[in-house]
Amino acid sequence: MTNCILASTSTIYGGTYLDYLSEALEDLFQHSEEILFVPYARPSGISYDTYTEIAEKTFLKLGKTLRGIHTFENQIEAVENAQGIFTGGGNSFVLVSELYHQNLITPLQKVIRNGTPYLGTSAGSNIAGPSIQTSNDMPIVYPPSFETLGIVPFNINPHYLDPDPNSKHKGETRETRIKEFHVFNDTPVLGLREGSWVRVKGNQSILKGEKLTARVFEKQQSPYEIAPESLLDFLK
Amino acid sequence: MTNCILASTSTIYGGTYLDYLSEALEDLFQHSEEILFVPYARPSGISYDTYTEIAEKTFLKLGKTLRGIHTFENQIEAVENAQGIFTGGGNSFVLVSELYHQNLITPLQKVIRNGTPYLGTSAGSNIAGPSIQTSNDMPIVYPPSFETLGIVPFNINPHYLDPDPNSKHKGETRETRIKEFHVFNDTPVLGLREGSWVRVKGNQSILKGEKLTARVFEKQQSPYEIAPESLLDFLK
Repeated sequence: MTNCILASTSTIYGGTYLDYLSEALEDLFQHSEEILFVPYARPSGISYDTYTEIAEKTFLKLGKTLRGIHTFENQIEAVENAQGIFTGGGNSFVLVSELYHQNLITPLQKVIRNGTPYLGTSAGSNIAGPSIQTSNDMPIVYPPSFETLGIVPFNINPHYLDPDPNSKHKGETRETRIKEFHVFNDTPVLGLREGSWVRVKGNQSILKGEKLTARVFEKQQSPYEIAPESLLDFLK
Repeated sequence: MTNCILASTSTIYGGTYLDYLSEALEDLFQHSEEILFVPYARPSGISYDTYTEIAEKTFLKLGKTLRGIHTFENQIEAVENAQGIFTGGGNSFVLVSELYHQNLITPLQKVIRNGTPYLGTSAGSNIAGPSIQTSNDMPIVYPPSFETLGIVPFNINPHYLDPDPNSKHKGETRETRIKEFHVFNDTPVLGLREGSWVRVKGNQSILKGEKLTARVFEKQQSPYEIAPESLLDFLK
């Protein structure tokens, strides 16, 4: 039974790494002693080792050990044997390129669908949808495909940002970009604000995060807000 | 002799389409009666015809006619015979996909290098560099390649935005994104603010735009500002 947390961000303003999620993570990883960490998204270009150290510190507080997937000789086996998996944020293009390069897309799909608990933040949540085509990241490397795990049937737009009514900037707003996505694609998009996450259990997905609504974009419909605890099963 | 204007944006705050560039465009297109318009980037997903009408109105004021490339049976010939070319902004991924689909990359490179006057705004400027890997756009379609015309040896980041010191948002700043680009790539990047443009004449490129500095990013160097009228020939 699929068992995931897909979060908009690892860190909220004024907080520390993953702290706002600790209760939810204790639930998600209650049967996992060691977490397999996927550091491929390399935020700010940091190394796999540096990134793993950051995640490790947080998981030690939760009483869990954590090991970077890059330290395994056989990464596919590492995924197959994992008690729990966490893919951290960073650059989606870099992350997806490496997942393809290491032939990890199918193994990840399999184990997550079979119930290995999975945590994604930002780029790590983005890849749980059908594609990274609603990523906010800069296309700094060319991946073999934009297709991703499809654990949920909708795309996530992490770090969703409302248009600034006082802005003098002429670049596209997030809403404009997602509407452009729907000129070419049918997949629904969930604009997930920082502090929100999706809790997936089996075929059921629920919007979580205190007081924060999320913005839903469906092809040829006006976008609208949904409240925390909303079921997301209609998004397909 | 290459003869281009590569602008950060088509429109600045409080202005109308291309108005801040009219003097520069009169110079660029002084020997062009008809301009070939490339509407492929489809801002907000508008149709080629609608986009062409917007551009046409502005060029009529400059005493020029304008025709959309999509109305030609043979688009390669249209490029080869053009007296001047304008590629408008929108989504870089959509633009580049269609340029590859129509086999227009090489013909555009050839005529621009041979002196056909070229105007790019936003995505249309982005493609004048070696790649769209410093685009701000959402990857809503998967292009066959991120490589583009390479008319100038540096990448442009259009609509360059300074970090907001008061922001509570945890998404990456533009500067962070470009630094991530340089973890994986060597090409220098010019962060071009709205209102700035690059004037290319032969092998010489000059930063233009009143009072606005541009931000230069080179691999393994701290970013820095350059003043209007700066020569950009060192960026390679």
